[in-house]
Amino acid sequence: MVMEFRITERVPTASPGMSSQDALEMIRRKMGEYDTIDYVYILDSDTLAGVVSIREILSHDEILGDFMHRDIICFTPEDDPFDIPYLALSHGIKAIPVVDSGGRFRGVVPYDEIIRILKVEADRNMLHFGGVFHRVVDEKRSPGSMVKSRVPWLIIGVVGGTVTASMIGRFEDLLSGFIALASFIPVMVYMSDAVGTQSEALIIREIAVDPSMNHLKYIKGEFLVAAAIGALSSAFAGLMAGVTRMNPLLGLIVFVSMFFSIIAAVLISTVSPLLFRRMGYDPAVATGPLATILSDFTTTLIYLSVASSLL
Amino acid sequence: MVMEFRITERVPTASPGMSSQDALEMIRRKMGEYDTIDYVYILDSDTLAGVVSIREILSHDEILGDFMHRDIICFTPEDDPFDIPYLALSHGIKAIPVVDSGGRFRGVVPYDEIIRILKVEADRNMLHFGGVFHRVVDEKRSPGSMVKSRVPWLIIGVVGGTVTASMIGRFEDLLSGFIALASFIPVMVYMSDAVGTQSEALIIREIAVDPSMNHLKYIKGEFLVAAAIGALSSAFAGLMAGVTRMNPLLGLIVFVSMFFSIIAAVLISTVSPLLFRRMGYDPAVATGPLATILSDFTTTLIYLSVASSLL
Repeated sequence: MVMEFRITERVPTASPGMSSQDALEMIRRKMGEYDTIDYVYILDSDTLAGVVSIREILSHDEILGDFMHRDIICFTPEDDPFDIPYLALSHGIKAIPVVDSGGRFRGVVPYDEIIRILKVEADRNMLHFGGVFHRVVDEKRSPGSMVKSRVPWLIIGVVGGTVTASMIGRFEDLLSGFIALASFIPVMVYMSDAVGTQSEALIIREIAVDPSMNHLKYIKGEFLVAAAIGALSSAFAGLMAGVTRMNPLLGLIVFVSMFFSIIAAVLISTVSPLLFRRMGYDPAVATGPLATILSDFTTTLIYLSVASSLL
Repeated sequence: MVMEFRITERVPTASPGMSSQDALEMIRRKMGEYDTIDYVYILDSDTLAGVVSIREILSHDEILGDFMHRDIICFTPEDDPFDIPYLALSHGIKAIPVVDSGGRFRGVVPYDEIIRILKVEADRNMLHFGGVFHRVVDEKRSPGSMVKSRVPWLIIGVVGGTVTASMIGRFEDLLSGFIALASFIPVMVYMSDAVGTQSEALIIREIAVDPSMNHLKYIKGEFLVAAAIGALSSAFAGLMAGVTRMNPLLGLIVFVSMFFSIIAAVLISTVSPLLFRRMGYDPAVATGPLATILSDFTTTLIYLSVASSLL
């Protein structure tokens, strides 16, 4: 994906041989030419050789080359712009220098731009999670572009839904023999979608917080939580179904099938973001609606299969 | 909601009568005592009277009181911590001073803490949108606390689903007379949920970007987009239903009822975050699952009512 961001060249630069006193003098004299003076970038014939903070300049009385940091955190053309805020935060720096593929200094991503990138990313995650495609999230919205960004998942949803409908069609004898079954299809679908959406929000967050997470351990933990949640909610749903229809068998069918479909939905919603990520896609883009379509199919299949084996 | 954040008192403070040269001298001498030197805070017997940036100190040769900013952006106990990043961004400042209710200076929220607050907020929005309750989002997760934060919406979902099931029960004669209707319940529910979730992601983002947005104008625009999306998707779904079942009437029922239920879902999902916000709740907390439960009910009611009037 493409993310445009602003860099500024209006920052103090100096040679390694300049003294900290002279650097301070230069900053004071040329203050109007700088957008930010947090750091002075030390260049060795265009190549970024080191960096010193204004703080260090004020507290040293040596030549810059003697106390500059040589181990520089910087953004290269190969890096993902969305990593910029993480670079800044994890190293506690306020501006990220940008170099080209030859190591030549090009400018810096200033503080306010780092915050803007962080906001665009949060925004993008939220929209993609909600099933809205947006190549450039901060573009001006026209009604036509809004329709275009929202329709793709819906068309895929119609196709998936028609497949699910055909599968249900195979159970029509079962349904016409016990029509009360049909009434509980929406709550079955709702529950697995709701638990699945929770699992997805949690895994997408986990990936963002700790990209090197242990997948298997996470899936195991999520499975146990899903089993507990599934047991609680499906027991309650089974009780409600059995009591409102005064039909213990219907209650049992809802209980058993909801338990297994919640577990299936949780596994689908947890594993597919990890798979998408491994294949190089943004996990939030593709999983939201896709996992829902898949778990709607699975849930209905489990529900009707359990019903036909218990009836 | 409660959001803990870190403030530091380790910042340079001075009196209005101090010269910029003396302030610079003080900063250099006491450098080790400061966490950040971006700004010098000017205190008049404990009360925050003004602020000057390190940049301004370096480029002025006057007493601080002569060039300090008196119009200070600061955080008071009445403010919402989640506004801190917006204060910083909209005014282009790197640290937000904190004062108590008497205007006395208490410290500053430093740069890295502002970014952390922004991340916690994005995180919280995502989880709440996904239907996960979290009082303290960055707490260490235990399996028990995870179950507790996920079960509330599911229990409400079971209750809502049982109500929907009872409503469908009133249409059982209709369903048993035309059992193919039952097969299309999941895709009806999926489509209004999917479009509704898109609308919610968009409105929650809009509120975050522009809190003073014109509600009526936004709802009108969203309504038109919903009508276009609804017409496209329901025509396609109606076609698929009619063709796969070789039943034009079924196709017509799916087309008409999906169109109206998509519009209903969009209105529910757009208006309820605005209502929740007006009532003082976080729009992302309460609307996600609640709007879905409500629109599942509405969608099924529209579908079966349209079917019974056309059959």
